[in-house]
Amino acid sequence: MVIPEFSHSGVYAAALTPLKPDLSADHAGLLGHCRWLLDNGCDGLAVLGTTGEANSFSGSERMSMLEALIEGGVPGDALLPGTGCASIIDTVELTRHALGLGITSVLMLPPFYYKGVGDEGLFAAYSEIIERVGDDRLRVYLYHFPQMSAVPLGFDLIERLIENYPGIIAGMKDSSGDFANMSGAARRFPGFAVFSGSDEFLLDILNVGGAGCITAVCNVASGLAAQTLTAWRDGDGRADDLQRQLSAVRKAINAFPLVAALKEIMARQSGDKDWRNIRPPLMALNDAEAAELFNRLAQTGYCLPDVIGDTP
Amino acid sequence: MVIPEFSHSGVYAAALTPLKPDLSADHAGLLGHCRWLLDNGCDGLAVLGTTGEANSFSGSERMSMLEALIEGGVPGDALLPGTGCASIIDTVELTRHALGLGITSVLMLPPFYYKGVGDEGLFAAYSEIIERVGDDRLRVYLYHFPQMSAVPLGFDLIERLIENYPGIIAGMKDSSGDFANMSGAARRFPGFAVFSGSDEFLLDILNVGGAGCITAVCNVASGLAAQTLTAWRDGDGRADDLQRQLSAVRKAINAFPLVAALKEIMARQSGDKDWRNIRPPLMALNDAEAAELFNRLAQTGYCLPDVIGDTP
Repeated sequence: MVIPEFSHSGVYAAALTPLKPDLSADHAGLLGHCRWLLDNGCDGLAVLGTTGEANSFSGSERMSMLEALIEGGVPGDALLPGTGCASIIDTVELTRHALGLGITSVLMLPPFYYKGVGDEGLFAAYSEIIERVGDDRLRVYLYHFPQMSAVPLGFDLIERLIENYPGIIAGMKDSSGDFANMSGAARRFPGFAVFSGSDEFLLDILNVGGAGCITAVCNVASGLAAQTLTAWRDGDGRADDLQRQLSAVRKAINAFPLVAALKEIMARQSGDKDWRNIRPPLMALNDAEAAELFNRLAQTGYCLPDVIGDTP
Repeated sequence: MVIPEFSHSGVYAAALTPLKPDLSADHAGLLGHCRWLLDNGCDGLAVLGTTGEANSFSGSERMSMLEALIEGGVPGDALLPGTGCASIIDTVELTRHALGLGITSVLMLPPFYYKGVGDEGLFAAYSEIIERVGDDRLRVYLYHFPQMSAVPLGFDLIERLIENYPGIIAGMKDSSGDFANMSGAARRFPGFAVFSGSDEFLLDILNVGGAGCITAVCNVASGLAAQTLTAWRDGDGRADDLQRQLSAVRKAINAFPLVAALKEIMARQSGDKDWRNIRPPLMALNDAEAAELFNRLAQTGYCLPDVIGDTP
């Protein structure tokens, strides 16, 4: 089986951002983690999204991180950075900066401070951003995550955006956890690349013509997700079993605050306690939570990867 | 009757931000509007809050606006600017900048992208901000607006903040519309200045030892709010009637998207159509909405002020 032709597709990690003890971004650590992910099953990386704590960083911090990745040799076309801010002015600045680095595809939250603004306001916001960026190379992946942004992106809005900005509106990461929504979008909008934000729907979204998955859990299970995708492509019958294990890993981790749980796993597997650093308002797991996390993971039978996040 | 001694108290407008046709901030217009408000009943101004579209501006835009107000002669101690951003790094930068201009009191949203983070995470965020700002002159007014931020600030958190940062944690703007919450805070935390974000609770919050109100409607009804406060102070019996009229005005305006409705009123009363400019995702009222707004306002019997927002 094959994925339809999209500008991005396959297995993407919503990459974690390693931090130094003073909570500043660890550029070398981020570069190492991203290289490791690309070497271990990821087709691309959604850096600086919700899992990457993007909205806990200033604009200049975000731009510096992207520069470090490009300077470190990560290909621009493997990156799908988050650029959506509360202010459309900031979104334009980050998006232009990414384009300047040769990164043409971005994952774009709607402006997320004002709630209940309606489709007119959201259309105006995305229009204003696209017009101000003013670059035909731009590919926008809409970021639908109502539980976190509290600003959902409905089908009427998506349709209007696709009609007005064909080519530029390229796809969506759907982190709603609602398969009816993501499959509905994949069916309704041909050529529009729908990524599931939930590991458990990787095969399901592929089966309805979706693009793949972009998930937090892929920070520690990208190999398993890639095996699942490959088995589906090859039609070799193992795909469902692999998907079941991937879903079990997701369920075990998702019982805890997700970013903290993943950073805890990275700290344990890499032996680098700095992986536990996290920016408020997010908090690291406490010892009891960490113990329970590893209990639950052990019950899935999944073998966590040994060496992750080594700096280059 | 008297308001207890707080660093800020009385009638505050959550000041609108006038925009140019290209959606950039109109500094001269903002200065003129702020001066007009201070000359027409406002004891102070909560600039760059929700009504001021603060989170639709970049950090540098926000800093430039504050500089324009100070350079234009607005006293720093009359200002309570919003400085709370999604990123604590940005919040620290804006707060330090305000202090550098001699503005020591700020209205501070919690980091508002991540939801459901809990009191530990919110305490860590406010702590980190206060420690990084590192200025004993700082006075933080917490901004509780669960309908917009989707990050509520509960009493346990407030208590812990007051205990750990006495003097610095100075008060709260409670925009929840829940009088039980704001009166509960005013009663539970002596010396903590509780402002109602809702005009209809001005007298009620004063009667339980609160500090006053900070409201959007005060952009066009600050004189009426000030008369209500004065009548309460003088115990002259007109206070309840004035409060009823203020509440009616609030109700008429609040039937529409609030910022857009207030900008429509400003445009009509000043004759300056640029007052209708608003940043996406907010949208201006359409003609039918505007007509209905003025119908409803007429029914309140309130006489809108004639000249507002004149540039200096």
